[in-house]
Amino acid sequence: MRNIRLIIQFDGTDFSGWQYQDNARTVQGELITALKGLTGQHVTLYSSSRTDAGVHATAMPVSFRLDTTLPHRAFVMGLNSKLPLDVRVLTAEDVDAGFHARFSSLGKTYRYRIQTGSVALPMDRRIAWHVPIPPDLERMREAAALMIGEHDFSAFRSSQCDAASPIRALRRVGIETERPDLIAVEVEAGGFLRNMVRIIVGTLVDVGIGRHPPAWVTELLTHGDRCKGGITAPAKGLFLKQVWYP
Amino acid sequence: MRNIRLIIQFDGTDFSGWQYQDNARTVQGELITALKGLTGQHVTLYSSSRTDAGVHATAMPVSFRLDTTLPHRAFVMGLNSKLPLDVRVLTAEDVDAGFHARFSSLGKTYRYRIQTGSVALPMDRRIAWHVPIPPDLERMREAAALMIGEHDFSAFRSSQCDAASPIRALRRVGIETERPDLIAVEVEAGGFLRNMVRIIVGTLVDVGIGRHPPAWVTELLTHGDRCKGGITAPAKGLFLKQVWYP
Repeated sequence: MRNIRLIIQFDGTDFSGWQYQDNARTVQGELITALKGLTGQHVTLYSSSRTDAGVHATAMPVSFRLDTTLPHRAFVMGLNSKLPLDVRVLTAEDVDAGFHARFSSLGKTYRYRIQTGSVALPMDRRIAWHVPIPPDLERMREAAALMIGEHDFSAFRSSQCDAASPIRALRRVGIETERPDLIAVEVEAGGFLRNMVRIIVGTLVDVGIGRHPPAWVTELLTHGDRCKGGITAPAKGLFLKQVWYP
Repeated sequence: MRNIRLIIQFDGTDFSGWQYQDNARTVQGELITALKGLTGQHVTLYSSSRTDAGVHATAMPVSFRLDTTLPHRAFVMGLNSKLPLDVRVLTAEDVDAGFHARFSSLGKTYRYRIQTGSVALPMDRRIAWHVPIPPDLERMREAAALMIGEHDFSAFRSSQCDAASPIRALRRVGIETERPDLIAVEVEAGGFLRNMVRIIVGTLVDVGIGRHPPAWVTELLTHGDRCKGGITAPAKGLFLKQVWYP
């Protein structure tokens, strides 16, 4: 049995997320169908993350075990010839027998885009959250600094999150302007809770537009009450950018 | 009668171009419907360009005459509340009675994006032309320099072009990298022939990937034979970026 890792990119707009569902279009479903077409076998696919509906991936690792002699090139070109245009295999390689796209991960980087200005721009509508009032970046950075490190992120996870522990270690939150009216928030951690990046972004925007002071973050990390926390920023602004392995 | 200019942005992917058609979704058609809904009147709309199906506009001026007391704000917010999400009014203002979005134009800037690398990326598939072999930018720049100035651009216009003269003055062709795998070609002129920007880009790419030497451009400008010229780059990479007025 070989253990094979693919890096895929997808535009999440028209997918009901990563995870296979019987009656919905999912990235996992499309890949399983394409792999079945290429190899004739039903393949069990492991992904680094189970992205929600609407979330995109610039580079998401997925892995699977398969008894095959197909070259890497066949996985890239063969699968791409069968996949729809909104999901592509970028690379394929053999990895150690013990590798698992999810459990071997040392960390992940997500990037979130916010488009500011009074009008929601057509060219950004699929890839960014429209926030009419431009948030103050310095306030956002001040709030972000308070999140860095190991904390109980209970106020930053969805009520549907099934993680055993709410403790996570946030390594980096970078805030930059891609265009004068397009802010990018980049977040890196060993692991994330459900909706954690989107709640972090919603919280930073609440601080940036003056609804709360930066110190609000410390309150949220202390009391851990999701109901008193920031909003969940919409899925369409979120990109899984990179997953780190040993 | 007031003379009003709007600046609009649209994602051309799902439009059959600018110009009204009875049985197709067009930008002009959507705007006429929204203006009718807002003002109760049928408005004749003039645009700076009649963009083809699939071409986008970052900022396209359109103008119309109307007897109304509506404030500018009503044209922006009122129309946007009626328009589909892939077209938006960015600004509205009153202009001189003699202004006409097309005939008053002193020039236009277009931007064209090319995504390179073996795989056509999902996130770029609506906004860039995928060219697997990365073109040599220096060769492209050398070829572009030969196009600058006033020339007979007969080899650079569609056979359906109905312009009386094929003479145009190209002011600027800029070639830069937005990302390592995303090239942007920016072209500025007083006016363009039909498909001229897309044929310029197709020609520059042919030179960039080594199919022709840069001096081929001089040949094309001399003999004026469209059939011997470069290919027409696909519409989806093209953006109308700016229109210049006095």
